Amino acid sequence: MHESNEDNITEAVLGRVRGASDPRVRTISEALVRHLHAFIREVEPTEAEWEAGIRFLTRTGHMCSATRQEFILLSDTLGVSMLVDAINHRVSAGATETTIFGPFYVPPPEFPNGADISGHFSGSPLYISGTIRNVDGAPLAAAIVDVWHSDAEGFYDLQKLDQHPDHAGRGRFRTDTSGSFRLWTVRPTAYPIPNDGPVGQMLSAQGRHPYRPEHVHFMIQAPGYRKLVTHIFAAGDPYLDSDAVFGVKDSLIRTYQGHIGGLALDGRTMSGPWFSLHQDFSIEPSA
Amino acid sequence: MHESNEDNITEAVLGRVRGASDPRVRTISEALVRHLHAFIREVEPTEAEWEAGIRFLTRTGHMCSATRQEFILLSDTLGVSMLVDAINHRVSAGATETTIFGPFYVPPPEFPNGADISGHFSGSPLYISGTIRNVDGAPLAAAIVDVWHSDAEGFYDLQKLDQHPDHAGRGRFRTDTSGSFRLWTVRPTAYPIPNDGPVGQMLSAQGRHPYRPEHVHFMIQAPGYRKLVTHIFAAGDPYLDSDAVFGVKDSLIRTYQGHIGGLALDGRTMSGPWFSLHQDFSIEPSA
Repeated sequence: MHESNEDNITEAVLGRVRGASDPRVRTISEALVRHLHAFIREVEPTEAEWEAGIRFLTRTGHMCSATRQEFILLSDTLGVSMLVDAINHRVSAGATETTIFGPFYVPPPEFPNGADISGHFSGSPLYISGTIRNVDGAPLAAAIVDVWHSDAEGFYDLQKLDQHPDHAGRGRFRTDTSGSFRLWTVRPTAYPIPNDGPVGQMLSAQGRHPYRPEHVHFMIQAPGYRKLVTHIFAAGDPYLDSDAVFGVKDSLIRTYQGHIGGLALDGRTMSGPWFSLHQDFSIEPSA
Repeated sequence: MHESNEDNITEAVLGRVRGASDPRVRTISEALVRHLHAFIREVEPTEAEWEAGIRFLTRTGHMCSATRQEFILLSDTLGVSMLVDAINHRVSAGATETTIFGPFYVPPPEFPNGADISGHFSGSPLYISGTIRNVDGAPLAAAIVDVWHSDAEGFYDLQKLDQHPDHAGRGRFRTDTSGSFRLWTVRPTAYPIPNDGPVGQMLSAQGRHPYRPEHVHFMIQAPGYRKLVTHIFAAGDPYLDSDAVFGVKDSLIRTYQGHIGGLALDGRTMSGPWFSLHQDFSIEPSA
């Protein structure tokens, strides 16, 4: 049987990819063909629409560089990254929920508890503190807490390396004997994902804004426990209901508490407005 | 409701893309999200598999250039191009069937009937002739017949422009008052699609060869009729059952008839082996 027609081509392609020797390649290839063909059969693209799709993917590929990953942005903005995160992090009751890793992590410099990681960032002082516990509530000493966030204009240090070669808004801490960590930095802000490429054009065509609500990233690691990658979002942010990458979970929203002057939680005397964010995290044993 | 969890993220993304002002963008975006999420939910990719997918798409994009379209190869090898062709060319009974356009067409130089278009190609002489008719069987004079094919090593002229700047194996003819056309060229051969990129790696992982069976491309145009894009495949080719791009239809397979010496159909005296291919085409009125 040579024929590839509209009725039998899906079965023909499935028959071909079943030759994969690796069973996982076979499973993924078969599912890809079934779902991709179902999409094409449903929308019945014109040839011009198919060509537009080819051009979109090509431009997305050409936008990718050492400092820009447009296919990850595409995955993020179509909700695929969060779905993959959810599938891979079905956490136990009591454990802190995860959210996406994002493109702005690099292993950060280590600081002592209480240090200020704001570096060349300017903005409103923000005191962040918390305790790392296991799901039974026992505090974990010597856990590694990586923190990273944008500046008050919405840029990560990595996005301005040409102007400021030093890290800022990024640090590694270790919990003390009571399982706690604390640090000073400055408040980040809501910011748009890079939207000068094909993904920005897609968002625009779909009537969507490119903003993510204000958040601080955390990655928490301790021997014998699953690595936790999450954000803590600022309560009240106008983009909490419409995060361009669908990263928000209710349990990850906290008030960034405002203060005016007075004594900060670590005894420092403050002269103007400042904020504090207290967040405890619960991590679960490795599988 | 802020929450994006495994249960509700698909609905959340669908809700977002419904803001598209263009109804076709909305339809395609919604279908894309539903089918893409269904694929992810079925295969439950690990984070490493998701990263491998991002890298595959990125390499595919980076492979695309002015002379190489790796996303079209991906579409071809997953059967998407043929499915789009089938959806867009549901021909009437009696009309010649279509197959994919391929990446090797450029508007060809025009020749008089009977001319030899082989140019710098070498190989076994091939005489091609046929009549263009409407679906009622009436011959169509002055129809435009574009013909293109590979050389005997499987390369199109466009793939060797650095060695041979002139066209070869490519020409435009006009049917005579009896609706017929005829030309000399040389036999092409089965050939592999370009397989030194990500698509070649995918074929290899799926246990597939990259070959297309021997064929000659035809594009036929006449005022008031639908443009016909098709191939005529060589009967007996070992790859007819496994064309890497699923382009074969039974009705498009013909015997490339072998001869030894003697008088060719146009009266030319032949000294060695040569072939002839006779193929009539029926085209249908424009919508």
